[in-house]
Amino acid sequence: MKRRNILGYAATGVATAALAACSPQNTGPAVQSDSLPRVRWKMATSWPTSLDTLYGAAELIAELVSKLTDGRFTIQTFAAGEIVPGLQVLDAIQQGTVECGHTASYYYIGKNPALTFGTCVPFGLNTQQQMAWLYHGGGIEAMNKLYADFNTIAFPAGNSGAQMGGWFKREVNNIADLNGLKMRIPGLGGEVLSRLGVNVQVLPGGEIFLALERGAIDAAEFVGPYDDEKLGLNNAARLYYYPGWWEPGSSFDLQINLTAWNRLPTEYQEILKTAASAANIQTLAKYDVQNPQALKRLIDGGTQLKAFSPEILQASLAATTDLLEDMAIRNSSFRDIYEPWKQFRDSIRQWHAVGEFAFSNFVSTPILEGL
Amino acid sequence: MKRRNILGYAATGVATAALAACSPQNTGPAVQSDSLPRVRWKMATSWPTSLDTLYGAAELIAELVSKLTDGRFTIQTFAAGEIVPGLQVLDAIQQGTVECGHTASYYYIGKNPALTFGTCVPFGLNTQQQMAWLYHGGGIEAMNKLYADFNTIAFPAGNSGAQMGGWFKREVNNIADLNGLKMRIPGLGGEVLSRLGVNVQVLPGGEIFLALERGAIDAAEFVGPYDDEKLGLNNAARLYYYPGWWEPGSSFDLQINLTAWNRLPTEYQEILKTAASAANIQTLAKYDVQNPQALKRLIDGGTQLKAFSPEILQASLAATTDLLEDMAIRNSSFRDIYEPWKQFRDSIRQWHAVGEFAFSNFVSTPILEGL
Repeated sequence: MKRRNILGYAATGVATAALAACSPQNTGPAVQSDSLPRVRWKMATSWPTSLDTLYGAAELIAELVSKLTDGRFTIQTFAAGEIVPGLQVLDAIQQGTVECGHTASYYYIGKNPALTFGTCVPFGLNTQQQMAWLYHGGGIEAMNKLYADFNTIAFPAGNSGAQMGGWFKREVNNIADLNGLKMRIPGLGGEVLSRLGVNVQVLPGGEIFLALERGAIDAAEFVGPYDDEKLGLNNAARLYYYPGWWEPGSSFDLQINLTAWNRLPTEYQEILKTAASAANIQTLAKYDVQNPQALKRLIDGGTQLKAFSPEILQASLAATTDLLEDMAIRNSSFRDIYEPWKQFRDSIRQWHAVGEFAFSNFVSTPILEGL
Repeated sequence: MKRRNILGYAATGVATAALAACSPQNTGPAVQSDSLPRVRWKMATSWPTSLDTLYGAAELIAELVSKLTDGRFTIQTFAAGEIVPGLQVLDAIQQGTVECGHTASYYYIGKNPALTFGTCVPFGLNTQQQMAWLYHGGGIEAMNKLYADFNTIAFPAGNSGAQMGGWFKREVNNIADLNGLKMRIPGLGGEVLSRLGVNVQVLPGGEIFLALERGAIDAAEFVGPYDDEKLGLNNAARLYYYPGWWEPGSSFDLQINLTAWNRLPTEYQEILKTAASAANIQTLAKYDVQNPQALKRLIDGGTQLKAFSPEILQASLAATTDLLEDMAIRNSSFRDIYEPWKQFRDSIRQWHAVGEFAFSNFVSTPILEGL
């Protein structure tokens, strides 16, 4: 046991030169720490194990919690469908079937449309802005007011970065091209495109490839190069559009049954929260390292990148604004988040235009023009 | 004691409906955890306490470590100058005067120029890219090979986001305007501008205002709106340039004496690392929430935003490339990091041009054009 060795050193007064300079009380004798409960939890997730990015975030949280408690608090992770279907994680948490889950808040907008803010909003915050809103802009608190209705508390625990606009079997250059297009796209992005004439389909990830390959649908979006490649979508369509304006920086959640949360020692609560923060940043980093390599493989394999036209972007932005304003009128909990969120979005965009965008504009414009 | 109450509930069989659904072994009886040492550390920092962003990151790490160990592992933070001067934190760690510190690796490029990669590189990685490089691109490992020469190990523990180009008393429109300009700018950015004729000055943060106000220098860069406002730089110069191409996403480090690190129980090591990850993302979020508000106050107070001209940006980029290539020739440990770093930079820029930039180009260009 490494720990005993360390204590042994301290007890026998073997101190290194570096530590000899410290005052003696800095590393005191070992003390019997308070007794802490052994806790074993189950975590349902919305992901197949093959998505090592998102399922990997769940595993990382479990690994960190175990390491940080020396194995006293362990969490067993389950793939989508093992305990409950992937889109019923929040239900399982609310019912106490599992103590926690790793999922996306926007899967549950049928229960409350305001839950979309926890993941992303079309033409909304990008990744860095979403994190700022969640951690220091009142986002976590706003989301947990909503989650309380489901006896749940949640913390950000992973981000995909900006997503792609998806795979298309034929070009879409203008609004007329969208009319009747059969496209797999869930969430608010689907509602916006539906207003522009798209025949919106909602399919689980595992069914996208066959539908696209056989022509049951004309287009499909999923995540980005690394995850999309795993589904083989590049083998079903050749045109790969950007940007994925409906998901400019999607955040994923560690959701926890509130009763189970309240029974945890404060120390374990803080460990869970901190592990979620670490998983948040490290999952984004993993996406940002895997996506460039996957994008290169896709292009080498014949995938053709296409930018959405200004006409389609402008029409989509207008339809998005209409949709969000309509939802704010219809739903008070949506409105309560939307109004301050809009102010936050406009304010941080002003700063980022100067601080972040002016730099990336200089280094990225030549790359984009060279595509 | 909250914990005892929880255990009491478990022992007397009081279980909520939510938890009743869990299998009985999920929350077992309390066990006496292994004894863990009480550890008290000192953390020197490079920051005055008035910089609540950066000094706040150090405090957050200390707070998290204490919470995650229920007070068994505590770290006392010290402002710059309290134990050692702000730019000698690494020396104090190497000598064992303190067990750890919060500082920036690029303050120590005099010891090894490759240490700049841990913080930022002119025209290098932006914030999100720097995090990707550190966590999943081999960055932490590469930096810790360098830090081992100083008996130190370090983890990313805060990021400022993209910084500003600084405060100027007169316009700089072309390269000729840079000639003889007396500017406070440390690090590699200063070396680049020196090659373009700037008379580079290095002053501690606390001396910038007076030097600029009295005309001893013509220009000065520090961080960004929130930190710069605290120094009152807006009262000494009116023109505020962007982008700060020499610091497109500066990362700060938790540095730890390697001997002290090796004496920690594995559990405490993991807690320190995880707390640093949480401080990393949450410090960036704090900057991203405070900077927009400060920028608005500055503009309302008469500050005038100015973009560096394409001529200055292009010349600075060319001088930066020359400098980095020269350093790679002269210094093998710089070269060992630089070569794979360049590949990483080019690869992630390709992906971000499509995934991140195409979106921010659409939403940010109108803002930048409206300034």
